[in-house]
Amino acid sequence: MPRQITAFGNPLVKRARSLRDKRHRRQEGLFLAEGLRILTEARDSGRLPIELFYAADSAAHPLVSALIETVEAKGGAAIETSHDILAKLSGKDNPQAVVGIFAEFITPLAALDRATSPIWLVAERLRDPGNLGTILRTGDAVGAGGLILVDECVDPFSVEAVRASMGALFTVPIVQARWAEFLPWLRSGPGQLVGLSLNSDAGYRGASYVAPTFLLTGNEAQGLPATFEEECDLLVKLPMLGRADSLNAAVATAVTAYEVLAGL
Amino acid sequence: MPRQITAFGNPLVKRARSLRDKRHRRQEGLFLAEGLRILTEARDSGRLPIELFYAADSAAHPLVSALIETVEAKGGAAIETSHDILAKLSGKDNPQAVVGIFAEFITPLAALDRATSPIWLVAERLRDPGNLGTILRTGDAVGAGGLILVDECVDPFSVEAVRASMGALFTVPIVQARWAEFLPWLRSGPGQLVGLSLNSDAGYRGASYVAPTFLLTGNEAQGLPATFEEECDLLVKLPMLGRADSLNAAVATAVTAYEVLAGL
Repeated sequence: MPRQITAFGNPLVKRARSLRDKRHRRQEGLFLAEGLRILTEARDSGRLPIELFYAADSAAHPLVSALIETVEAKGGAAIETSHDILAKLSGKDNPQAVVGIFAEFITPLAALDRATSPIWLVAERLRDPGNLGTILRTGDAVGAGGLILVDECVDPFSVEAVRASMGALFTVPIVQARWAEFLPWLRSGPGQLVGLSLNSDAGYRGASYVAPTFLLTGNEAQGLPATFEEECDLLVKLPMLGRADSLNAAVATAVTAYEVLAGL
Repeated sequence: MPRQITAFGNPLVKRARSLRDKRHRRQEGLFLAEGLRILTEARDSGRLPIELFYAADSAAHPLVSALIETVEAKGGAAIETSHDILAKLSGKDNPQAVVGIFAEFITPLAALDRATSPIWLVAERLRDPGNLGTILRTGDAVGAGGLILVDECVDPFSVEAVRASMGALFTVPIVQARWAEFLPWLRSGPGQLVGLSLNSDAGYRGASYVAPTFLLTGNEAQGLPATFEEECDLLVKLPMLGRADSLNAAVATAVTAYEVLAGL
């Protein structure tokens, strides 16, 4: 049976709230995801929350009641609570009807099977959680085998990244690796490393992409380090017809990823 | 000579701070833009702030001192201030070195000359300021003639939209129009209306784009209304190979815009 919590001081509420902070996520190995669409996507991908907070007046919604049932059947806790507590957990005045607490899951680099997809996304020192989530969402759309986060990237389990991923966090494998680990792994098998770079004369369009393509996007402000570019098999750039010299990192990744997809 | 302000209660600080709120922007016809890169872009595009707040210790930076000089030469006010006040204005703990207050500028629909560009971006009921800013940035990159915001879109002058535009707010003309105004204007001259839609069998790739193309993106959650789709000359969709049924609106716009650009 679902339990009810209405006190802000309740330890489960406090712990859930603390997961908005990266340090607490690391300590607990847990993260927050919110919204019926994302939680349903998670369940359909085989991920259930260990705790499911839901608004009392939403329990009758068929998708919410189905979630509650599945969570409880699998040993998780369903917790009926107030809009105020959901607002506190989500950090929004108009909170979603459901908030789930999930165990973090990172795929080890060695577990990737590059034969499973012709396209893989790689991001280096990505700083913006919205960009990370958006790249995951694009990864899902282009059928990427996974997103490999190289060196110090923003936390993929931050509330903003999870939100921007629109559920793709649960469908696209995520790897975290140092460059010094990633590169030997990449070179241990087939794989074309394609870097997005302004230091290229090659247009992204009609370039010779070879599967599996590993599409490498650099830091939002600085792009790829020169030493990384030197390791790429191909550097491509997008036409920039205006005054600015760069696109949003998630946008540049997506435009190129769709071109790779069409070119393979 | 620059003046100095260090009191939070100073009326200029209070007014600047109030511009983080849409209601005050509307009342004053002013908005905030921050950061040396964006303010330099603005100046190079012929837009100067009426007030320029800068950190005392950044005045020696050549780009900052050049900005101060230009602003004062054109009758604006340069205001030396503290990091704490800049943090208050920008809403960030680590504020940019400069924050400018600009007069809002919207291009009237009737002032657009569709002969000036083969591609125009149109967004309908866009809700997310980050998406709006990112679409502006993409508009700059693809050389779009402008961004036409149809019906109730998020405010392009919000701090988040200005930030995400990375200065493109100053380089890409922005129009606000009702659908009932936009459509007759569009049909009064040459122009292909291309809608991004999941209700299409036509791939975005290799479709017959005809200049000037007006690329129409719908609301993030709902897409385009059916009545809008009926008015389109072409509906195109992007391949969705994963579990999700949609991309981020700014990403979908960018992927299609680059395809249009290549196909014209």
